[in-house]
Amino acid sequence: MNIKLIYTRLKSDIDIIEKELEQAVGSTSPILQEASVHLLQAGGKRIRPVMLLLGAKFGDYDIHRVKYAAASLELIHMASLVHDDVIDDAVIRRGEHTVKAEWDNRVAMYAGDYIFAAALESMTKIDDVEAHRILSRTMTELCIGEIIQIQDKYRYDQHLRDYLRRIKRKTAILIAASCQLGAIAAGAPASVHQKLYDFGYNVGMSFQITDDILDFTASEKELGKPAGGDLLQGNITLPVLYAMENEAMRERIGTVHAHSSREEIDAIIDLLKDSDVIERSHVMSRQYLDRALAILDELPVGRHRNSLRDIALFIGKRKY
Amino acid sequence: MNIKLIYTRLKSDIDIIEKELEQAVGSTSPILQEASVHLLQAGGKRIRPVMLLLGAKFGDYDIHRVKYAAASLELIHMASLVHDDVIDDAVIRRGEHTVKAEWDNRVAMYAGDYIFAAALESMTKIDDVEAHRILSRTMTELCIGEIIQIQDKYRYDQHLRDYLRRIKRKTAILIAASCQLGAIAAGAPASVHQKLYDFGYNVGMSFQITDDILDFTASEKELGKPAGGDLLQGNITLPVLYAMENEAMRERIGTVHAHSSREEIDAIIDLLKDSDVIERSHVMSRQYLDRALAILDELPVGRHRNSLRDIALFIGKRKY
Repeated sequence: MNIKLIYTRLKSDIDIIEKELEQAVGSTSPILQEASVHLLQAGGKRIRPVMLLLGAKFGDYDIHRVKYAAASLELIHMASLVHDDVIDDAVIRRGEHTVKAEWDNRVAMYAGDYIFAAALESMTKIDDVEAHRILSRTMTELCIGEIIQIQDKYRYDQHLRDYLRRIKRKTAILIAASCQLGAIAAGAPASVHQKLYDFGYNVGMSFQITDDILDFTASEKELGKPAGGDLLQGNITLPVLYAMENEAMRERIGTVHAHSSREEIDAIIDLLKDSDVIERSHVMSRQYLDRALAILDELPVGRHRNSLRDIALFIGKRKY
Repeated sequence: MNIKLIYTRLKSDIDIIEKELEQAVGSTSPILQEASVHLLQAGGKRIRPVMLLLGAKFGDYDIHRVKYAAASLELIHMASLVHDDVIDDAVIRRGEHTVKAEWDNRVAMYAGDYIFAAALESMTKIDDVEAHRILSRTMTELCIGEIIQIQDKYRYDQHLRDYLRRIKRKTAILIAASCQLGAIAAGAPASVHQKLYDFGYNVGMSFQITDDILDFTASEKELGKPAGGDLLQGNITLPVLYAMENEAMRERIGTVHAHSSREEIDAIIDLLKDSDVIERSHVMSRQYLDRALAILDELPVGRHRNSLRDIALFIGKRKY
């Protein structure tokens, strides 16, 4: 089965979540409403809600209960995008003008705060203190990750473990929590909670590594922004870490700064693509994916397990 | 009994909350830890925790349970101060260098996010979904208030209702929620929850109006920052709204902008102090206070009720 079929099968439930997202960010402030709806309409793959729904299938699935958890996770993701845009000076995100560019930094900061709070409010519609606890813990970890990411920018002396720690907090734990919270929201047996978390964690790591590869290999049209953005912004990702094992490359990459020329960034991208660092990064991504698939084998056999496998494989192989 | 006696009597419990605050913001990120502890050490009156403790006295008071709620409310207040500083370009807050000034806007934004998340995490240590729900709802309202405050800056055509709506969201609902959440965290009878909320709301309105008066009448030493800061930053507060009923004053105040001279601000402050607008603002503050005291009469008689009365009176009469 392919990924489109999973989305098709879940379509009516995803539509319910879209409605819930709109409701959750509805407010009495026109400017906030506008900013949030704008962001919602920009869309996205809704990976976190989909993972959450599939996690919920291991329990007593009721979309009108799990929708609150699914909306909550997507809102946290959206809030972090809004705040990232304040930080990254990004003008374009998902091909749309960012909240920050259209309004300004101040509104973007409070809009992010508001969406964060709306995420929590959505989750509290589920009467389960454990779910609230996991969500707030995930948020604190996410924030620590953001700060570490700022500290690590343009730091060319960092190691693989710095990168892995960063993407764990930035991406993997939110996908892990999505899978786990789906199970919890649906009252699934405790035995599957941790396994779903571990599965999501490994999928998340694989996902982010693939994302970081695509920032070099995908076209501007596919990315919705120029390639090499991470490099320009000082985010040292896996292909760059591998490339810096070569002394000459290390020196050249070490000169990159926020105002490096487009030609220089493109030249470095070409060098990366001509070397083995992209392939080596794919190998690392695949290792996390294999771990995720191995964990799946420990979950009860069934259609949802197959869907999770398909999603994991899609994430590992996606081209953009 | 005076206010000092209330603080003295609650001292050991406030110390427990201070420890909880430190623990709640403890993290593996040195920069975050440093930023948060810095903020904690700057102190503050801890009004929200104290109100919460007194609200909790109407129930089955256990400091080792209510401390999580008390820390949570103070953390939300702290987080909003951190984000306000990003917005206000404030260099000094409570006489200390702000997180923003010492680090920068980016770290301040994520430090605020982190403290928000830590606030929620602290509250989830109390097994009561209603408490979690009220907290997240309070946060969304607070964020809407922040956005409205930005929109209303330097808007000299606003009315009393705009001001009241703003201070309600900015200040009153957090104090209202403090009183209410104290009662909930201590399992107090449902009959007192709403009354404590209403009491806190009116105290909060009175408190903010007094705060806004003090921004004109207190000395730089008392305020820990130059007087007239609100005026300079475009926050139209009650004395200014009253002053603008006079056409000449309206025109003069309407020319104030972010780079108005110190002399001009001081001259306007003198005009305000020489008119009746300060006294009229005190009358409005006192009206809210009287409403708070009337609500208190509906609560069970006892020492805590007297303490709440003393705190309310202190807040209404404080000089700085």
